[in-house]
Amino acid sequence: IPPEGLYAGEIVIGDGGFVFALEKRGYVKAGPWTPEATVEHPEAVRQLHREFLRAGSNVLQTFTFYASEDKLENRGNYVAEKISCQKVNEAACDIAREVASEGDALVAGGVSQTPSYLSCKDKAEVKAAFRKQLDVFMKKNVDFLIAEYFEHVEEAVWAVEVLKESGKPVAATMCIGPEGDMHGVPPGQCAVQLVKAGASIVGVNCHFDPDISLETVKLMKEGLQAAKVKAHLMSQPLAFHTPDCGKQGFIDLPEFPFGLEPRIVTRWDIQKYARKAYDLGIRYIGGCCGFEPYHIRAIAEELAPERGFLPEASEKHGSWGDSLSMHTKPWVRARARKEYWENLKPASGRPYCPSMSKPDGWGVTKGARELMQQREATSEQQLKELFQKQKF
Amino acid sequence: IPPEGLYAGEIVIGDGGFVFALEKRGYVKAGPWTPEATVEHPEAVRQLHREFLRAGSNVLQTFTFYASEDKLENRGNYVAEKISCQKVNEAACDIAREVASEGDALVAGGVSQTPSYLSCKDKAEVKAAFRKQLDVFMKKNVDFLIAEYFEHVEEAVWAVEVLKESGKPVAATMCIGPEGDMHGVPPGQCAVQLVKAGASIVGVNCHFDPDISLETVKLMKEGLQAAKVKAHLMSQPLAFHTPDCGKQGFIDLPEFPFGLEPRIVTRWDIQKYARKAYDLGIRYIGGCCGFEPYHIRAIAEELAPERGFLPEASEKHGSWGDSLSMHTKPWVRARARKEYWENLKPASGRPYCPSMSKPDGWGVTKGARELMQQREATSEQQLKELFQKQKF
Amino acid sequence: IPPEGLYAGEIVIGDGGFVFALEKRGYVKAGPWTPEATVEHPEAVRQLHREFLRAGSNVLQTFTFYASEDKLENRGNYVAEKISCQKVNEAACDIAREVASEGDALVAGGVSQTPSYLSCKDKAEVKAAFRKQLDVFMKKNVDFLIAEYFEHVEEAVWAVEVLKESGKPVAATMCIGPEGDMHGVPPGQCAVQLVKAGASIVGVNCHFDPDISLETVKLMKEGLQAAKVKAHLMSQPLAFHTPDCGKQGFIDLPEFPFGLEPRIVTRWDIQKYARKAYDLGIRYIGGCCGFEPYHIRAIAEELAPERGFLPEASEKHGSWGDSLSMHTKPWVRARARKEYWENLKPASGRPYCPSMSKPDGWGVTKGARELMQQREATSEQQLKELFQKQKF
Amino acid sequence: IPPEGLYAGEIVIGDGGFVFALEKRGYVKAGPWTPEATVEHPEAVRQLHREFLRAGSNVLQTFTFYASEDKLENRGNYVAEKISCQKVNEAACDIAREVASEGDALVAGGVSQTPSYLSCKDKAEVKAAFRKQLDVFMKKNVDFLIAEYFEHVEEAVWAVEVLKESGKPVAATMCIGPEGDMHGVPPGQCAVQLVKAGASIVGVNCHFDPDISLETVKLMKEGLQAAKVKAHLMSQPLAFHTPDCGKQGFIDLPEFPFGLEPRIVTRWDIQKYARKAYDLGIRYIGGCCGFEPYHIRAIAEELAPERGFLPEASEKHGSWGDSLSMHTKPWVRARARKEYWENLKPASGRPYCPSMSKPDGWGVTKGARELMQQREATSEQQLKELFQKQKF
Repeated sequence: IPPEGLYAGEIVIGDGGFVFALEKRGYVKAGPWTPEATVEHPEAVRQLHREFLRAGSNVLQTFTFYASEDKLENRGNYVAEKISCQKVNEAACDIAREVASEGDALVAGGVSQTPSYLSCKDKAEVKAAFRKQLDVFMKKNVDFLIAEYFEHVEEAVWAVEVLKESGKPVAATMCIGPEGDMHGVPPGQCAVQLVKAGASIVGVNCHFDPDISLETVKLMKEGLQAAKVKAHLMSQPLAFHTPDCGKQGFIDLPEFPFGLEPRIVTRWDIQKYARKAYDLGIRYIGGCCGFEPYHIRAIAEELAPERGFLPEASEKHGSWGDSLSMHTKPWVRARARKEYWENLKPASGRPYCPSMSKPDGWGVTKGARELMQQREATSEQQLKELFQKQKF
Repeated sequence: IPPEGLYAGEIVIGDGGFVFALEKRGYVKAGPWTPEATVEHPEAVRQLHREFLRAGSNVLQTFTFYASEDKLENRGNYVAEKISCQKVNEAACDIAREVASEGDALVAGGVSQTPSYLSCKDKAEVKAAFRKQLDVFMKKNVDFLIAEYFEHVEEAVWAVEVLKESGKPVAATMCIGPEGDMHGVPPGQCAVQLVKAGASIVGVNCHFDPDISLETVKLMKEGLQAAKVKAHLMSQPLAFHTPDCGKQGFIDLPEFPFGLEPRIVTRWDIQKYARKAYDLGIRYIGGCCGFEPYHIRAIAEELAPERGFLPEASEKHGSWGDSLSMHTKPWVRARARKEYWENLKPASGRPYCPSMSKPDGWGVTKGARELMQQREATSEQQLKELFQKQKF
Repeated sequence: IPPEGLYAGEIVIGDGGFVFALEKRGYVKAGPWTPEATVEHPEAVRQLHREFLRAGSNVLQTFTFYASEDKLENRGNYVAEKISCQKVNEAACDIAREVASEGDALVAGGVSQTPSYLSCKDKAEVKAAFRKQLDVFMKKNVDFLIAEYFEHVEEAVWAVEVLKESGKPVAATMCIGPEGDMHGVPPGQCAVQLVKAGASIVGVNCHFDPDISLETVKLMKEGLQAAKVKAHLMSQPLAFHTPDCGKQGFIDLPEFPFGLEPRIVTRWDIQKYARKAYDLGIRYIGGCCGFEPYHIRAIAEELAPERGFLPEASEKHGSWGDSLSMHTKPWVRARARKEYWENLKPASGRPYCPSMSKPDGWGVTKGARELMQQREATSEQQLKELFQKQKF
Repeated sequence: IPPEGLYAGEIVIGDGGFVFALEKRGYVKAGPWTPEATVEHPEAVRQLHREFLRAGSNVLQTFTFYASEDKLENRGNYVAEKISCQKVNEAACDIAREVASEGDALVAGGVSQTPSYLSCKDKAEVKAAFRKQLDVFMKKNVDFLIAEYFEHVEEAVWAVEVLKESGKPVAATMCIGPEGDMHGVPPGQCAVQLVKAGASIVGVNCHFDPDISLETVKLMKEGLQAAKVKAHLMSQPLAFHTPDCGKQGFIDLPEFPFGLEPRIVTRWDIQKYARKAYDLGIRYIGGCCGFEPYHIRAIAEELAPERGFLPEASEKHGSWGDSLSMHTKPWVRARARKEYWENLKPASGRPYCPSMSKPDGWGVTKGARELMQQREATSEQQLKELFQKQKF
């Protein structure tokens, strides 16, 4: 697929979330969530890219999430100083390109929201942060660019404007739900602003489960139609069920980030998601946090009739469970069929736990004192104040 | 740790389950569950070993689960023919040794239950299958041997007898619960028989969650004490909650193997498991299916006070959530403490699903027609009969 | 309380639902839900009235729900023929008055939606049905009138117009949720129309749980304020939790009407409801299906500070569990306090059941063939067609 | 049915629990749970008896639960002083006989465990308490006698010995589960001791749900068979699901007694219970706390084929939901069939609540200081100590 493929409306399968997958594998620290593994443990990043490629991804995103200089230097995380922003971004590009060449995937350079914006730095300063990453992407000649994980459309627009300077195609996704961005801008309006700023693909990523994300993209689609603005649609939701979360998504859930296991979606949930996304007219279909290679494979398997082929990793997977016909136990072989897995309501095995949680709703966003970027680690005193606040 | 370490009663941390982890990564087929990835994709197997090593494993098990000749040649899976049993086992040894040398881990060669036994082949034939694997382990000079995943103590004893011929230390675990083996032999009696056959470490692996597994090891311990037989204890349970399963464990649960996500245990569940296991006197503490590297890290972190050090992967992990003090959002920073995670009751996000399931209970075991090894794929007609049986 | 009390804004406590309570006691048939027990078993109706009075009800509603002539003569229920509409209504008035005199309660004559309306009969015919009941209420000199359980505001307005002919105060409640009536009229607009038709008290009853009902009354309040129309507010919700039901309320839930037990609200849920209702400005606070005498007592206990007294039945009940200080077992005595009960998350004891259900949504309402009133019983053929429809 | 009927092995349907039902109706105080309503509000007691009779009960138990003198005078409850033990018991007999005469039911005088026993009073003193109640039963000429709700078989045996002095048939039930009585005597042994003391019917009542109760009666049956002792079997379980409770039953559950609503069993649960009880050979089948008249009717409907008739209250109830064929809404009419209700997994409507709870397990029983009978109310100081104990 040449970069133009993104425009012609073919199905493009994205990849899954790197920070969550690599956290579980031992290479990313939950909290800062920064991608210095590209320098420290390239073999681990390379292997994950390879697994997504094998699973059917047409796009490998450079592992540059939260790799802006200000985020690499926040609250006691000194990656910028120890390694440097440039090296982290460069290594990410090299690894992605290396693996992409093993198949026929595109490499997309990605930027995401910055502490600078949340700390009320001005437009020029925020843009400078994106430009620093873009310089690397241009030097390494990525195929296209993605601005992703933005809670405020204003910052997302700034990012798109910077990325657009490159002349390369730009995709833009926000981590919002049907209620819109943190300033209350509805999804439809966000989409229109992003396209007007230069994005040719728009949609959502992260923060919400597949169902809620599709609902949001649907609102974007309607907003674009109403404004008579054209763009391709994209969705990269969580692989966690989040029916109970509020405006700010899964980070508000009490289970975030170390107790989300019971919410992990099955491959069958993802096949249903892929079909729904396709039917809604979305053509860039991928995932975010929680998506493992087998979830991406589920997208590729569901859309195999439309794409005309199965991904490489399907050599080790039968459609809708049919490899179970090779199982030793007869009652497991009896599960080798679509009807069985399609209708299963999987139990949590946790009778002492509820099925939904009340999300935190601190109502804190851009400009709030507690959101300010700070170089030094959170102090004991600062933590104590937060613990107090949590309780009452 | 020299192999003798296993005897002196130091804490030995095992690794996690390979077939489930590599199935999700795209390299193992659910159904046959055979380990030909050692030949086909050594980089994937190597990376998983490395992650467990980084997470704190003292032992790397060769990825030779279900690598007996008869299992590699069953129901349409033709690995023995295409690759050969010897090559799969050799590659597994090479990869494990290569990664073990990156740290100071031991390599353990593993054998598991055979279709031959279930098909009522005689003792000599079953033993021959184990011996074929053992020959490779000896040639590759593994540090010690594990007989694991046995449903019948009779077969496990045969395996131990074969492995013992090598003169190397032997550990033996069965995939049983408190009800005992499939022939009704209680756990305590199983343990005694295994030690008498030559095992110096006994315990359980797979099929049940940490709580039930510890209950079973406790029964083994009591059986050994009553018989005045000495051995070290070992537990490698599932990383799935299975309070609802019956005698045959999680393969009976309707969610097996493609809908188990909501049952996945958290790292905090594992810290509690590691502590309980230690307090029970178990010194070889690891995991089986569902265990990812971060679960093994949780064992290593829980037992860091006893062991005196943290694993390498803890560079990217704060104890009991304290790396969250570096999170951008204040309400997530407020979760940076043990009390929070220790008491969390994580929601499933699945309000339309139950918390427990009724397991299948077909009552089929050794000798049943449907369990017989067969070279050719399960036929359509055979499947139809099973679907019928499932319904009524 | 004189009838005027209803206007002055004092707190008026309603009673609970008769059809569900008497169904469980053996005097009402689920399906037709008609009140012929007033004639057949007056002692049972009398006792239930008495229990509500003791629990704190200021109003006893005549048990005339679904006592219009057309409903008493529907689908094989021949009450009109066997007993007569007039006798059922008269007996209901006599019993309510008799018990009301044991305390100082008001008697309210009630009418509810008719099969005639659903069968598209014209305004005159529908009004005639209400007038027939009103004649009895006037003869028996009830204190005021209630039009309740209307799914269509058009019919509710007709009912209010008829009742208003009496010169007595009229309250009107609809069984709708935030989405409005079955024709899509929003709650605020329904409220305005009802007041303009002559109701001095408006609100909702039945079909939804306390939370959703209060949300609906809030919308009514806002509609009235926006239209600068004055009225008192009233709520008589279900005593079942129904977070999962759609526009048509609990009758769509698969558990209706014989599997609702796990949804029954506790007395503590009701105390929270009463407080929230009061804070919202609602002054006529009662209940509908599922409300048992102890639920009404919970309203009276919660509002005792405002009302200045406790109901008679509180002789046998301590506030927020304090009578447990008299329990034999010490751990139960330890539960004798508000903090305990206020925060309890009661378990269902049903690990194989989900927490929410998907409601039926047949989209059938006024005018649909299957809703037509018919004198004769539903035929086998008609039932078969419905069973078919349910499955697919 | 003459009293001898109890011996001949016909089906005898018991009644339901009075204290829970009348607590909800406003006549019994949770905590002391004493039956002074027989004097204070005979009409309420009479009506409940009548409803059970209508529902199919063959036996009306006098409402004399906890009506021993020492229990009527405990922890600030001064019924003995204000009314007198004798009057409460006499009124109970009169009411039961009056209602029994409306049908053909038997009247059974009942005694239950005493504070005196828990306070370690001697055999003579405890027996004196039972004899005081028995004197009334003899004077009022009840048809037979029941010793029920005993946690210690020793006390139950004493009760049976006293009741047997009357020459009337004696039934004896304990509120125990499969683990046996509070002193660890297993169910089978309890049953044998009770029969040897003179009981001709033995079984369990209260404390556990139908499933667990039947499991316990099964153990009793096996104990009797092993000891070659003959007796009829009886079960009167809770109408609450309690899969999660320990040895002491539902009083240990955190929901006891004011948050048990989500555990209430449906009529269909009871039909399954009645069938299972019958198949197990139990012939005296009734209920205890939580059983409302419609639950008893469900027993009578399930066993109608064996008994040859339906209870009176079935005039207002169709078998397995068939009265729903008269419902206005077509999708509810579609539920008019056994298959629908038999398979329904009813949702709790409580997504924030778990499905099981951890019971309190204070391990306090006979002889413990906190269980001592005391005339005066529990003091503030005593309560504070308990609250402390609950927390830690």
